[in-house]
Amino acid sequence: MGMRSTPYFLLVVMICSAHAAPSQKERGCRRARSNLSIRIRKDNIIDLTHVTDERSAYWPNNPSGFEMVEIFKGFVETTTRFFYSTYMFSQPEHLGTHMDAPNHFFKGGLGADEVSLYKLIGPGVLINPKKNGTLFGKDSFITVDHFLEWERVHDKRIHSGSIVLLYTGYSDVYYDRSQYYGTNATGDEAVPLLHFPGLDPKAAEWLVTNRCIGAIGIDTASIDQARSKDFLVHQFLAKHEIPALENVGNLGKLAAANKGFKVIALPSKNGGGTGAPARIIAVLN
Amino acid sequence: MGMRSTPYFLLVVMICSAHAAPSQKERGCRRARSNLSIRIRKDNIIDLTHVTDERSAYWPNNPSGFEMVEIFKGFVETTTRFFYSTYMFSQPEHLGTHMDAPNHFFKGGLGADEVSLYKLIGPGVLINPKKNGTLFGKDSFITVDHFLEWERVHDKRIHSGSIVLLYTGYSDVYYDRSQYYGTNATGDEAVPLLHFPGLDPKAAEWLVTNRCIGAIGIDTASIDQARSKDFLVHQFLAKHEIPALENVGNLGKLAAANKGFKVIALPSKNGGGTGAPARIIAVLN
Repeated sequence: MGMRSTPYFLLVVMICSAHAAPSQKERGCRRARSNLSIRIRKDNIIDLTHVTDERSAYWPNNPSGFEMVEIFKGFVETTTRFFYSTYMFSQPEHLGTHMDAPNHFFKGGLGADEVSLYKLIGPGVLINPKKNGTLFGKDSFITVDHFLEWERVHDKRIHSGSIVLLYTGYSDVYYDRSQYYGTNATGDEAVPLLHFPGLDPKAAEWLVTNRCIGAIGIDTASIDQARSKDFLVHQFLAKHEIPALENVGNLGKLAAANKGFKVIALPSKNGGGTGAPARIIAVLN
Repeated sequence: MGMRSTPYFLLVVMICSAHAAPSQKERGCRRARSNLSIRIRKDNIIDLTHVTDERSAYWPNNPSGFEMVEIFKGFVETTTRFFYSTYMFSQPEHLGTHMDAPNHFFKGGLGADEVSLYKLIGPGVLINPKKNGTLFGKDSFITVDHFLEWERVHDKRIHSGSIVLLYTGYSDVYYDRSQYYGTNATGDEAVPLLHFPGLDPKAAEWLVTNRCIGAIGIDTASIDQARSKDFLVHQFLAKHEIPALENVGNLGKLAAANKGFKVIALPSKNGGGTGAPARIIAVLN
């Protein structure tokens, strides 16, 4: 894992490794996180959020997708005449670009409204495991080696509090359900037919315990690879209060910008939600 | 309105007043906006978002409020045994802390997914028109004088691109519907019974055309005062593509911090939505 000899990195390693217990908090990850400066300029925001509409991706055995129902749309006559329009909407929590809360896979875990905002705003790391112009192999894993490779190429460690984004290329085929999920089927019978890559459970553990990340995101429907039966990454992240961002969009555009960036991911504050729609943006350095 | 004689303010006035047309864009408001630095420290975020749940405020003649329906909650047995929980939710667009999109009151206006994020991230201005510990008078207006008073006290103009927040005190009584709305009634018959303060339509025009604001927020159910029949503020803001934030929370806490701040308001990206839940945070300087 590339031990470094400079005092700065030793310090981070020492802080991150001070205790044997696995949780971030116990390992002092909070203390290790430094201040973060975000500079908004004229044109340096990339929106990493897919539009939420009836085409939005949702887990195949959820009962339905995003639906809007009109309450009123038209002109109102009072002292003047004016246009007015308003709707209801409904959706599964885990539809489109969203955040998984710890209580999704950990009983009694934090709800969507309780996840620390300090974990959802941080320096960005983009992992691009695929060859240009292709999708990262379906049913493949992003492993610790991919993160070590990023550290070698960038000649730095992944900072404490980082928001690590995995660009598998699937965000580019978001609207092609057969490619995105590996199947057009829906319902429980679709689950065994799913195919897409995901994070290696060992890498999730490494990122959380050795790199003290704030959050992790992926441009597929799930942080766990499609063939997973017990969702070990979800379980581990949930237990350690690390939010996961799924169906992240526009990572191709972010990769093309080829610049350092910060991430701001703000979920809807649904009380006790096991997840919630999230607006996620990258702010280029 | 307090003409200033320093070159800086003259320049801003000149840029903002270069054309007679009313729109911000035509008036050069975009050019006048400068870079924005936001510094996240250990404990300088104030969440201005009410939790979204079955108690959340919604316009009295909307058919229903926030509802969650369980899809699954319990333990799953596969190769291992793990906890899993997931829900559907439904709500009116304009429930709880949310953003009004221009198409709410302007036919063909931008939807919730199309509002510029640059308008939703900006320097914050907190207007506190009430006496300490009381609610600002119901059915009262926040007027241009309140903004000029803020400028006098702070000895500076409201910056171009500012997100102006109106603290009427109603965020402190959010869960007391009879106080918050002025009535416990629901349905169409409740509308004539509403009582709460709002923004003077003349002040909305002044803020947009003379101060080039990015967005405006209020801690009541509507940026228009409760007695409004034609929603002139909504109409004006919609026409000029200025998002309005309603049911903003925690403004008392922000007032108590008594510091300058930046605002980040990120709405759900509902395609064509006339509004959307927004997670709104203040970052203290």
